[in-house]
Amino acid sequence: MEKTLKPIRCKAAVCRVAGEPLVFEEVEVAPPKAFEIRIKIICSSLCHTDLSFWHSKEFAPIILGHETVGVVESVGEGVEEVVVGDRVVPMYQPNCGDCVVCRSNKSNICAEVPARILGMPRNGGSRITDGNGATISNFFGISSFSEYSVVDVASIVKLEPGMPSDRACLLSCGISTGLGAAWKEADVETGSTVVIFGLGAVGLAVSEGARLRGAAKIIGIDLNPNKFILGKRFGITDFVNPKEIGEKPVNEIIKEMTNGGADYSFECIGLSSTMSEAFFSSKMGGGKTIILGADLQGSSLSIKSTDIIFGKTIIGSILGGTKVKVDIPIFIKKYLDKELQLDEFITHEVGFGDINKAFDYLIKGESLRCIIRMD
Amino acid sequence: MEKTLKPIRCKAAVCRVAGEPLVFEEVEVAPPKAFEIRIKIICSSLCHTDLSFWHSKEFAPIILGHETVGVVESVGEGVEEVVVGDRVVPMYQPNCGDCVVCRSNKSNICAEVPARILGMPRNGGSRITDGNGATISNFFGISSFSEYSVVDVASIVKLEPGMPSDRACLLSCGISTGLGAAWKEADVETGSTVVIFGLGAVGLAVSEGARLRGAAKIIGIDLNPNKFILGKRFGITDFVNPKEIGEKPVNEIIKEMTNGGADYSFECIGLSSTMSEAFFSSKMGGGKTIILGADLQGSSLSIKSTDIIFGKTIIGSILGGTKVKVDIPIFIKKYLDKELQLDEFITHEVGFGDINKAFDYLIKGESLRCIIRMD
Ligand SMILES: [Zn+2]
Ligand SMILES: [Zn+2]
Ligand SMILES: [Zn+2]
Ligand SMILES: [Zn+2]
Repeated sequence: MEKTLKPIRCKAAVCRVAGEPLVFEEVEVAPPKAFEIRIKIICSSLCHTDLSFWHSKEFAPIILGHETVGVVESVGEGVEEVVVGDRVVPMYQPNCGDCVVCRSNKSNICAEVPARILGMPRNGGSRITDGNGATISNFFGISSFSEYSVVDVASIVKLEPGMPSDRACLLSCGISTGLGAAWKEADVETGSTVVIFGLGAVGLAVSEGARLRGAAKIIGIDLNPNKFILGKRFGITDFVNPKEIGEKPVNEIIKEMTNGGADYSFECIGLSSTMSEAFFSSKMGGGKTIILGADLQGSSLSIKSTDIIFGKTIIGSILGGTKVKVDIPIFIKKYLDKELQLDEFITHEVGFGDINKAFDYLIKGESLRCIIRMD
Repeated sequence: MEKTLKPIRCKAAVCRVAGEPLVFEEVEVAPPKAFEIRIKIICSSLCHTDLSFWHSKEFAPIILGHETVGVVESVGEGVEEVVVGDRVVPMYQPNCGDCVVCRSNKSNICAEVPARILGMPRNGGSRITDGNGATISNFFGISSFSEYSVVDVASIVKLEPGMPSDRACLLSCGISTGLGAAWKEADVETGSTVVIFGLGAVGLAVSEGARLRGAAKIIGIDLNPNKFILGKRFGITDFVNPKEIGEKPVNEIIKEMTNGGADYSFECIGLSSTMSEAFFSSKMGGGKTIILGADLQGSSLSIKSTDIIFGKTIIGSILGGTKVKVDIPIFIKKYLDKELQLDEFITHEVGFGDINKAFDYLIKGESLRCIIRMD
């Protein structure tokens, strides 16, 4: 292992100007530092969080992309978990496996290696520079819209041969967030009532998780009526479109449908108004609201003390409480055992050269997940 | 049991005008209806919630008092749990024992018999009228500032002979709220860090509960420096007085003292500002904020989605999640086994005729609990 690793020149789709099409450029990807891994990207899927950061003026130039599978090209000092040629799924929340949090069952937010929006989680900085030698920001320690990228060993899960890359990449973020929220944060029980605000991939993954747990009623809330047809496949039993209910607040409709309030209420949008509706839709005496949505503006949830003291709980979570190295293998096994549906989330597919089309599909609300295959 | 029960004429301390001294009057206490019990009050203790309702203009005329022990004088139809002569502790949150909630471990908010501020929990209405035959509101289904009162069988715990009445009454509300919050809602663990906003009886009972669980650090926050001396007896290890820390927000001090945030943060005041501080004092990745305080104005907690998603939880609870018929006997056993401290909460004692003095002590912040003995 004494050979010196060299930078790799390759193609990347760079976000140069917020909200404008990504630009293909030749970039240079530095060798991995200690506990880092350089990977060749196999495929990615596009997540709403990519869109949020693409829209935001604060981050460009940046290489987006954080739901992906890659193959290990080289490893930095200290990496023992994988070898060159292994396929890995990187996740934005590291899981060192060794700190007090990782060794507990209480949280998935590793105390040793932090999740970062910009910069590598452990060592900081970006490993990618442009043709002029200027640094391009990396994103969540992943930046998969590049032929090669560098990730941290604490953030990856090694894939066994049987698992297809274009299914595994879905587990990098959105789907795992929804499944984790249903299984870990809410711990949805057989026969319970569930309401889900926002039927994007995260909301539908919550439904899929609740369905597998045997929830009796899963109510989906969305402005797009097509989401109900789609939602049925993932277990949505009832649909409420806020546009079609007149003046009545959504939470009143939900209370009528659930005998006073849902056992579990999931917010997958991140708006103040839907966070409030989600909270008020949950039942007094044990009702739980799980906040998964968050916008960059940090919309606020405002709750009166006199409302929350009647036995309600609000839970916020990163990745739905999913512990990368522990839970992703479980999700994969459930997929391979044909329990968990993943194929159904894929609505579109493009080659890397057409990546801007993937953005269009998601912006227009046409796609759930669009797979972006490297050429 | 065919004899017809008659109304009882007796003395009560009535709140006629909000914020003015209670007035002694002869009142009439009607016989118990089905599943109700008429009790002769032995003693009460004064709680901050009595003060809040005494201050509020909406409720007078009303008979306050909700921490008490009484002896069964007569029982209504269907009551089998107690007989005449039994001593009972009534609680404001019923526990029918039979509904879906009472049979589960998930919540203490009985689905069958509701807690009500005004009116009897099951049958509604007040059993107390004044000399002119006009109804006087009852309070939380208890109204113990009267020689006799009527309570619901779902709300009472029968006392075994060994337990002193003037200790058992403390478990009717405040102390049980604090103990329940520490043991049931938070489930405080050995070695954990705890912060408590407001060191009244509820806050100190949280500390007592955390102390018995072996918390490593219990930080008390209060504007009154005497509370630290008092708090030490209940396990408070560190004290922060917001008046003495300059411009720095309390939550920053707490984060410094707890390596990034407390495991458990309890709000026992009910103000917007302290609810926010409590939330921000809890750690990312598993930190829990338990809201116990609530003012009649319903002060709001405002949280940004981007703050809560980092693995924080907010729990609101009634009586700290205490299940009346299940948990109060456990608390009593711990007291009789000399594990749980109750005597230390009693700072004052008055006869019924001096009940207005009990109000003065609490308003001035001199008392934790003042026992009011019936003459
Ligand atoms: Zn860790
Ligand atoms: Zn994502
Ligand atoms: Zn019940
Ligand atoms: Zn009280």
